[in-house]
Amino acid sequence: MSTGVTAPLGFRAAAVAAGIKPDRLDLALVVADGTCTAAGVFTANLVKAAPVVLSQRHLGGGRARAIVVNAGCANAATGAAGLADAHETAENVAHAVGCPVEEVLVASTGVIGVRLPMERVRAGIAEAGRRLSRHGGADAARAIMTTDTRPKEVAVEFPVGGSTCVVGGMAKGAGMIAPNMATMLAFLTTDAAVEPALLRRALAEAVGTSLNRITVDGDTSTNDCAVVLASGARPAPAIEREGGDFDAFRRALTEAAQQLAHLLVRDGEGATRVAEVLVEGAATPTEADRVARTVAESPLVKTALHGGDPNWGRLLAAAGRSGVAFDVSRVSIWIGDVHVAEGGAARDYDEEAAAAAMREDPVRLRLRLGGGEASGWMWTSDFSRGYVDINAHYRS
Amino acid sequence: MSTGVTAPLGFRAAAVAAGIKPDRLDLALVVADGTCTAAGVFTANLVKAAPVVLSQRHLGGGRARAIVVNAGCANAATGAAGLADAHETAENVAHAVGCPVEEVLVASTGVIGVRLPMERVRAGIAEAGRRLSRHGGADAARAIMTTDTRPKEVAVEFPVGGSTCVVGGMAKGAGMIAPNMATMLAFLTTDAAVEPALLRRALAEAVGTSLNRITVDGDTSTNDCAVVLASGARPAPAIEREGGDFDAFRRALTEAAQQLAHLLVRDGEGATRVAEVLVEGAATPTEADRVARTVAESPLVKTALHGGDPNWGRLLAAAGRSGVAFDVSRVSIWIGDVHVAEGGAARDYDEEAAAAAMREDPVRLRLRLGGGEASGWMWTSDFSRGYVDINAHYRS
Repeated sequence: MSTGVTAPLGFRAAAVAAGIKPDRLDLALVVADGTCTAAGVFTANLVKAAPVVLSQRHLGGGRARAIVVNAGCANAATGAAGLADAHETAENVAHAVGCPVEEVLVASTGVIGVRLPMERVRAGIAEAGRRLSRHGGADAARAIMTTDTRPKEVAVEFPVGGSTCVVGGMAKGAGMIAPNMATMLAFLTTDAAVEPALLRRALAEAVGTSLNRITVDGDTSTNDCAVVLASGARPAPAIEREGGDFDAFRRALTEAAQQLAHLLVRDGEGATRVAEVLVEGAATPTEADRVARTVAESPLVKTALHGGDPNWGRLLAAAGRSGVAFDVSRVSIWIGDVHVAEGGAARDYDEEAAAAAMREDPVRLRLRLGGGEASGWMWTSDFSRGYVDINAHYRS
Repeated sequence: MSTGVTAPLGFRAAAVAAGIKPDRLDLALVVADGTCTAAGVFTANLVKAAPVVLSQRHLGGGRARAIVVNAGCANAATGAAGLADAHETAENVAHAVGCPVEEVLVASTGVIGVRLPMERVRAGIAEAGRRLSRHGGADAARAIMTTDTRPKEVAVEFPVGGSTCVVGGMAKGAGMIAPNMATMLAFLTTDAAVEPALLRRALAEAVGTSLNRITVDGDTSTNDCAVVLASGARPAPAIEREGGDFDAFRRALTEAAQQLAHLLVRDGEGATRVAEVLVEGAATPTEADRVARTVAESPLVKTALHGGDPNWGRLLAAAGRSGVAFDVSRVSIWIGDVHVAEGGAARDYDEEAAAAAMREDPVRLRLRLGGGEASGWMWTSDFSRGYVDINAHYRS
């Protein structure tokens, strides 16, 4: 079946066990039948891995044909040698596919500070190039996993003119980061034809309301990236200006990115429960987001979430240290539909109903600051013993 | 024995089981024989508990005679009624001691959003007032504990003129915060006579290099406070200007605060290991502190610390997301004395030696940014399953 990145027309994929990790798929190749328009967003971390530097450069022209992804080695903090390795990786793909090197995007995830085993990478690319298939999406999604417990794929249809186009995608990343193993990577494809500037806008919008709103541990990887390739392989009018077709596309892209984001946070390292943190009544969207992010990243909120404890004091205290100014005496807090605090103090609420709301899926945590009309939200997972176990001993 | 806050002359203390928590000491009273000069620093959280608001107001005059502390209830997010409770608490102490209400400082730690059981508080204060003793410091240190596994006391001697004065202290707080149970509180006393403005300066300096440099979970309590009272009960020249005596005092106060800070971080919730994160070569001290704090608070760094894993990539990645600009290609990293990374990339280091350095006490993590002369540091504890267990289920 053609799923994930191969759900749209015009894409083939393959995955191989190149030997970067022991005995499992660890290298994925996604190749379009022809040159695509392309866009990408990359980590805000000052420390950028070599593949991030290379792919950002290659995307300058707004075109791409192939994506190569390896797990097991992040090729980060590897200096000039690492950048040369990333470039050589791209050259090998260009050779296998028959395209300019500038049309190859490279992504890596795994241990930081270690060089890529280039001999295995070269052999793996050659093998993957021979195995490319319209049905390779599922294997590719599996090959990019690290601490993920399951592959993450998505496909969303949308109308363009009289045709039905598709956005497909795959992602990995059990933490927003664990820089040595759990970088967030997302790869989206579509068979619509989309003009580069519109593609960039749609991707920024989609990521801003999906992948940028999930947190597992608050750390931001050296390797994070999200890219989209538009093949135009579907017989449908090209999307070259704003309007109905573009709106349908960007809704589909956002939907696909949100589905991937939800899959990612649910598969957060050690996660047993997920929550939506909604902040309303802020002066500006930026302030709402900042409060939501501080609450969503608070270890105390995340452990309370794990324990199913309607501990609204931790929400208020986290909001209070967010750096955003608000009038505490106007704050209301809800857990699910239970209004637990008002005027910055406890209401006489039903503790059992609040505890039940902490076991819903997802848990809905809502703070109304009472200082404006802006809102923002984040998705988060809980902090469990499993998170500690995964991250304390991953190299042993 | 006169230990902790009663180690200096001129102070008595007592602790009682007032019934705010079940079957244990939960209310401490510290009273000076006469009016002291006093200073305090309080939480930077926008959400300030009622006792913080009251004590800040009372300290405006730079004088105090008594401190009352309860565990079991934070009296935070309790609105105007909570502020009235804090005021009534101070009035009860003023009555028991025979001093103006403005000379009473109040501190609380425990569950947020819940009113103080005032009947029990009143009875507890009356009983504690009858039991005040020169030997009450140890009981007081025990009464203010929440998730702390052991009481924390300190006493440091220093010379003033031909005499020897003492700084004493006690603290609690197994997280920098768990707002419902583990607020950081520190109470310092001295029998030197210190002019109020100098006392404020010395306290700010002491806290800035001790209690403000420890992190357990990055959360900041609604109730944090550190106060110092100077009785002048020791026959020694008053410290009224800068110079040798003031220097000796502020060194002793800083030493006492640092000892308390180390005791706090070692007793961090679930802590099994502590680390010093030192950042050198920053452009400014503020930037050095920001990088050190981001590294020290990173869940990935803290889980690596727990696992004893010399995972320097996590240090670099955390530094990279700190918001401080630096040249990655100039960064060096040491674990203990092992130089693991240079020029932003791995060195050929001895993995076993680095792993051994991760089992030292404390673990020393050092980043040199190569962008200036400023340095900063933080103390941190590891993230263990114990932290999760303590914070996921504390109310059950």
